[in-house]
Amino acid sequence: MTFDEKLKKMTDLINNRLRELLAPEYPEIIYEAMAYSVFAGGKRLRPLLLLGACEAVGGDMSEALDFACAIEMIHTYTLIHDDLPAMDNDDLRRGMPTCHKKFSEDIAILAGDGLLNLGFETMLERASKQQDMRYLRAAETIGSLCGVRGTIGGQVADLLSEGHKADKDVLLYIHEKKTAALIQAALKAGAIIGGAGEDELEQLDKIGYKMGIAFQIKDDLLDITSTAEVLGKPIGSDEKNQKSTYITVFGIEKAEEDYLRLSGEVCEGLARFGKRGQFLSEYSQKLIDRIN
Amino acid sequence: MTFDEKLKKMTDLINNRLRELLAPEYPEIIYEAMAYSVFAGGKRLRPLLLLGACEAVGGDMSEALDFACAIEMIHTYTLIHDDLPAMDNDDLRRGMPTCHKKFSEDIAILAGDGLLNLGFETMLERASKQQDMRYLRAAETIGSLCGVRGTIGGQVADLLSEGHKADKDVLLYIHEKKTAALIQAALKAGAIIGGAGEDELEQLDKIGYKMGIAFQIKDDLLDITSTAEVLGKPIGSDEKNQKSTYITVFGIEKAEEDYLRLSGEVCEGLARFGKRGQFLSEYSQKLIDRIN
Repeated sequence: MTFDEKLKKMTDLINNRLRELLAPEYPEIIYEAMAYSVFAGGKRLRPLLLLGACEAVGGDMSEALDFACAIEMIHTYTLIHDDLPAMDNDDLRRGMPTCHKKFSEDIAILAGDGLLNLGFETMLERASKQQDMRYLRAAETIGSLCGVRGTIGGQVADLLSEGHKADKDVLLYIHEKKTAALIQAALKAGAIIGGAGEDELEQLDKIGYKMGIAFQIKDDLLDITSTAEVLGKPIGSDEKNQKSTYITVFGIEKAEEDYLRLSGEVCEGLARFGKRGQFLSEYSQKLIDRIN
Repeated sequence: MTFDEKLKKMTDLINNRLRELLAPEYPEIIYEAMAYSVFAGGKRLRPLLLLGACEAVGGDMSEALDFACAIEMIHTYTLIHDDLPAMDNDDLRRGMPTCHKKFSEDIAILAGDGLLNLGFETMLERASKQQDMRYLRAAETIGSLCGVRGTIGGQVADLLSEGHKADKDVLLYIHEKKTAALIQAALKAGAIIGGAGEDELEQLDKIGYKMGIAFQIKDDLLDITSTAEVLGKPIGSDEKNQKSTYITVFGIEKAEEDYLRLSGEVCEGLARFGKRGQFLSEYSQKLIDRIN
């Protein structure tokens, strides 16, 4: 199987399971709103990393599928709430109306709550069914990295930094918590379910951090060096929104330097997982090298 | 120890543990907002039921304390999100400014998200520490009853029914999901941690449902029969807001009849737990008989 074939197969598995987990019941509108945002063009980055990490440590990917779906639901809830009028007030995401535009603001708030809750429900149900402490530990890992000490804390720091230049520590905190935390969570949870040893978990934690920061620097770089056609959204939006980025805080030279160093370290780190880590390695490289 | 002494002791335990779990870190404002709403005068109804149920089946209450705090955090997040401008748009709750009035709307949304997440984190951490499947099952029970198939579904149905008279099935669905679900979750989770057998769990599930519906009918009755002084909020607000209530849907006679029947059944059901269930029984009676 080529990389692209495997990528498609895994993405299909994730999407099919997400459809099952989001099967509508009464009151249908909340399921529609949750599914609308989950199926609004996401590339399944975190679920693919989670499955890839499970495989990289010698685990059976199918055992980690529910957790892959859970992390996608949790990621999607952060997007729905971030887009709300009281937050970033975005009308469009990936060219489609945001959840509160398509439905209404009250339904969007509840769809976000519903996805966060369903993410945890899915993990707990799976853990309970398996009666295996690995699943519990994987759920705990995801839970702590997406809470106030993780993603939510990052979003708060980001809101607080609006309109003025963030200092270096704050910017790194925001990038670590808003971007790297869920990537670390995906890699670690997948590896835990796959039966990783403590040293492998520690390595993947560091790789996840570096991948997250490299991913975010790339994002900041693309915003000033790409074109609207390639990017699919207006360029220069960070400057327009007076947003602190890796570039405004550290300068473009250091941004490019750090990006290259970190992506090199991610590549090296993943190479140590050998043939079993091939998909994870190749996929991670594509993520970091992306042009849009 | 008298009932009141025991109530105070348990409430203090819950509040002290909540303070620990909400100890502020960077960025402090989100911890402040979460703690503000958690300590805004809540009576700790659900945590007290959870601890009482643990005791009623012969368990050690201290083992259930973290879960008691988790359910209070989850309950509080529903209040914060329900009060938002896009939802009920309430400026005051228990005479104090609501979270988005005291802080801001974006912080209130994130404080709600943070409390929901921290509720799950707290349960998962405890379950992981104990390495005991009872905790996992208790977390799963709470998770499923506060999600889209529970509290969130109830809130959605409530939003959909605004401005027109709900039919009987819809009203019962709303009362079951919005009010009874978390009471059932509290009783069942406490009992699971306390080591209850399957028949005890089934009994408590039914008792929780009846208690929730009786509690809600009482709420609807007080809104038309009490005075603003006793209630601490304006009476007749349901009628003003064109809200469907047990009374508008079933009539006052059936409301009073069902209230008496259900509260009697709760009382009888709890009596079967004998001396160990004395606190739970007495506390439940006070809840159902409340005058404000």
